[in-house]
Amino acid sequence: MKAVKTEPGNEQKPQATLTQSELVLEALNAGKNKRVRKLLARMHPAKTAALLESLEPQQRLDLWQQIAPVREARILPHLSQSLALQLRNDPGENGHAEDGTGETGTSHLEAARKALAQGKLKRLGKILHPLHPAKIAGLLEALPPEERRVAWSMVETERAGRVLTYLHDEIRASLALELDIEDLLASASYLELDDRVDLIQTLPSELGQRLLHASNARQRQLIESMLSYPEDSAGGLMNADTIQVRAEVKASTVLRYLRLLENLPPQTDMLMVVDRKGHYIGALRLSALVTAELDQQVADLMHKDIAAIPADSSSADVARLFQDQDLLSAPVVDEQNRLIGRITIDDVVDLIREESDRALMQMAGLDDEADIFAPVLVSSKRRAIWLGINLVTAFAAAWVIGLFEGTIQQLVALAVLMPIVASMGGIAGSQTLTLLIRGLALGQVQKGNTRTLLRRELGISVLNGLLWAVIIALLAVLWFGDWGIGAVLGAAILVNLLCAAFAGWGVPLLLQRMGIDPALAGSVILTTVTDVVGFFAFLGLATIFLL
Amino acid sequence: MKAVKTEPGNEQKPQATLTQSELVLEALNAGKNKRVRKLLARMHPAKTAALLESLEPQQRLDLWQQIAPVREARILPHLSQSLALQLRNDPGENGHAEDGTGETGTSHLEAARKALAQGKLKRLGKILHPLHPAKIAGLLEALPPEERRVAWSMVETERAGRVLTYLHDEIRASLALELDIEDLLASASYLELDDRVDLIQTLPSELGQRLLHASNARQRQLIESMLSYPEDSAGGLMNADTIQVRAEVKASTVLRYLRLLENLPPQTDMLMVVDRKGHYIGALRLSALVTAELDQQVADLMHKDIAAIPADSSSADVARLFQDQDLLSAPVVDEQNRLIGRITIDDVVDLIREESDRALMQMAGLDDEADIFAPVLVSSKRRAIWLGINLVTAFAAAWVIGLFEGTIQQLVALAVLMPIVASMGGIAGSQTLTLLIRGLALGQVQKGNTRTLLRRELGISVLNGLLWAVIIALLAVLWFGDWGIGAVLGAAILVNLLCAAFAGWGVPLLLQRMGIDPALAGSVILTTVTDVVGFFAFLGLATIFLL
Repeated sequence: MKAVKTEPGNEQKPQATLTQSELVLEALNAGKNKRVRKLLARMHPAKTAALLESLEPQQRLDLWQQIAPVREARILPHLSQSLALQLRNDPGENGHAEDGTGETGTSHLEAARKALAQGKLKRLGKILHPLHPAKIAGLLEALPPEERRVAWSMVETERAGRVLTYLHDEIRASLALELDIEDLLASASYLELDDRVDLIQTLPSELGQRLLHASNARQRQLIESMLSYPEDSAGGLMNADTIQVRAEVKASTVLRYLRLLENLPPQTDMLMVVDRKGHYIGALRLSALVTAELDQQVADLMHKDIAAIPADSSSADVARLFQDQDLLSAPVVDEQNRLIGRITIDDVVDLIREESDRALMQMAGLDDEADIFAPVLVSSKRRAIWLGINLVTAFAAAWVIGLFEGTIQQLVALAVLMPIVASMGGIAGSQTLTLLIRGLALGQVQKGNTRTLLRRELGISVLNGLLWAVIIALLAVLWFGDWGIGAVLGAAILVNLLCAAFAGWGVPLLLQRMGIDPALAGSVILTTVTDVVGFFAFLGLATIFLL
Repeated sequence: MKAVKTEPGNEQKPQATLTQSELVLEALNAGKNKRVRKLLARMHPAKTAALLESLEPQQRLDLWQQIAPVREARILPHLSQSLALQLRNDPGENGHAEDGTGETGTSHLEAARKALAQGKLKRLGKILHPLHPAKIAGLLEALPPEERRVAWSMVETERAGRVLTYLHDEIRASLALELDIEDLLASASYLELDDRVDLIQTLPSELGQRLLHASNARQRQLIESMLSYPEDSAGGLMNADTIQVRAEVKASTVLRYLRLLENLPPQTDMLMVVDRKGHYIGALRLSALVTAELDQQVADLMHKDIAAIPADSSSADVARLFQDQDLLSAPVVDEQNRLIGRITIDDVVDLIREESDRALMQMAGLDDEADIFAPVLVSSKRRAIWLGINLVTAFAAAWVIGLFEGTIQQLVALAVLMPIVASMGGIAGSQTLTLLIRGLALGQVQKGNTRTLLRRELGISVLNGLLWAVIIALLAVLWFGDWGIGAVLGAAILVNLLCAAFAGWGVPLLLQRMGIDPALAGSVILTTVTDVVGFFAFLGLATIFLL
């Protein structure tokens, strides 16, 4: 399947009345580089030369940047000699990607941004050309939206699809929408089915549907069955590119069959063994096949202990299975144990990275912020919510302090010292919280050992509470020369550290039981507890003992 | 290579004068279950029976727990009938691992802890027996130290080595030290070389040396060369189990050679192609080999674009390479481009997980806390350091407040509201900080785009600063009925959010340039900034405008 072409899109109809040159100029002024290059490719070299000569110098240089090197040689003879010389000497054309080190990628970004700032698109194309799609994706994500869009237009159609698969969802969707529908369809045609499914899932549903219908009937059926599973299930992760063999045949037959296939799907480390009705019965590793005697039967060579993953398993279970059993790929089956696909480790690696990332980001209330250059307004809105939630916490703390206005009025030192109590509690609590969140994610913390863990955390907080209560109390005495303040401060620290350990332990467990991700809401709730308890204990004890 | 035995260790000499039975009892009382079972295995069944009869009921049950099922049948006839009946009916013996659900692992932990609490070691053995080594490792990590030690003693020697490789470094070292030296050597003999190297690296050097010398000469040489690279380099990650072929030979020859090998190392997806002097020239994928015509030459089949990794590459580079190129394994070469090993994806997956974990843990100052049940004293000490660092921050904030004691005395409402300013700044700053830390780790943030990013973060903080300044000011006016307080509070919030964005952006970049991990120290420094600036701005503005 190559370049699937469908109807060219309605928005192009009115343009049919314009001349070729006008179309080029329109696209050039709109910054649609892909379209410019496509139009130029259909234009006679002499006509292109005439167009170039008719333009203002700046616009001429801009257009020259869009002309592919292979076509330059055919256009140059049609130009006046002085203009030809001038264009050939344009630094943007001959600038050999001056990236120097290359390796680290830092300089790629700098070189790319410099080329973009100067409008030297040819140089940008030269910088992008030798890069792996994953590196191009990284570069695109490191660019601000405007520059990202221009750089994206310079990525070859054959590679655009692969680049899309390496991007985070949000950026992927926005860049896919940048493409003409025909370019998008052509890019997608270079993708494996599971990547095409991912792409469809991140696109607006109408566009996704067009992408789906651009695939041939067999593929469409496979894609539709893959789309029927949630994105974060085994079915959503799988690819339909399994190679299936039967248990009764001999190794030599399998080898002959493979030779006929000529190519195996990427990351194939095993063939799947199925019965006549397509039920999974085992896996034949390539390493077992190549070391087998030719007359051995698949049934004797295959591994029966490679368990098939039910399509509705959660992606977390899949990740754990791959890690525990050091798998490279694994079969996926439906409820009737029929083989419907396989999951490969590259997708699992992405999954693991995303999972761990998410915990880190969620703890700062940055749930969806994959694009560091998302529009300011969008990011502001998302973060505002988090600040708003935190404001409730802050006002709760302020309300507690407000209860003791009279006390503070009489003893201002309390206002000076009270943030210390809240802060120490917050830090100690977040240590316990983080340990629990990670432990729950790794399965180290389970129903059977939470109580033992609480005892341990309380033990640690008693030791640290006593240590820091004494030190802080002494420092306060030195500062304010008042033993009473020191004693109350120390006592409040100890109380708050105990509460912090309890909250750091209890909050994530409670959230987990309620089906809420502990990483998302844990720290806000914890801080509320440590602030409120800290201020209340300190000011309350002061009111009782110091007035 | 099976069970390597060396001298049995000095500590056993004085025991030579004790009788067999006394040795058993001594080991039983010391809780050395492995040793008990080893001694029992050498004892005549009749003698074991006599020993059982001579014991107190409780000790007798304990000893009975240690007797392997296969030996029970031979011992029972030598026991008095009543005793035989009593022991056979001991619930610990017949308790079929009552784990019910099994799948999730939760119940394994609960069942194991129940068995441990009741001293039913046989039942524990039955729970552990069907589990994958990775699951056993997970179970051990979820157990408190005492129970972990007992459960560990019930793991079969043949599987102990594999279990060790799945444990976190700290726990691995402590459990390896629990083993008799001969058991440790025997366990290690079942391991692949790279896992054996990992084990040697986590053990105290003396013990590591003994493990090294227990390997045969060729293995020792390989291990020593692998040990010569830092643990977190490509050389430290690699395994020496490459299969090498020459470029001139035909596919049929390679297949014949592989058949002679009978078994390929785990996770072999490609053979390495080398020249006569061992220089790496390409990789032959098994998937290419099985689809090749038999008379094709390796030179035509191999992939030349699979770049070899220099042994001194950092593990972070290795991880990125594997992810970007979807590799399953990759060749490792020395400075002369000689093939010295390969890295497999299972080790890379572990690496990725550990890396992401570390950022999360470090942000809470939990650098080394892999063992959720590390001794309370050890954990307290580690966390105390973090609390101490935070205390400096807290006192800096308190000092700033102290500067304005007079102001607070005149207007106590300031003391009530000031935590709100600090808290909102801290939250907004940590959002920027987290974004930067993750962006730096993923390579999204690079030298070429930091300034653009700063502009964006400042833009977001202006928008959110204005929004929340107005809201919070209005709330303060409602609360205290004073427009002045509201205005000052709003202004302080705006100032602090701007500083927070600047600090959240600048602190990680500065730390990175100084070679300090931003995740480790970033949040403490950031909080210091937002607290100090927040209190100073709020109380300072109040002093100027409200008094």
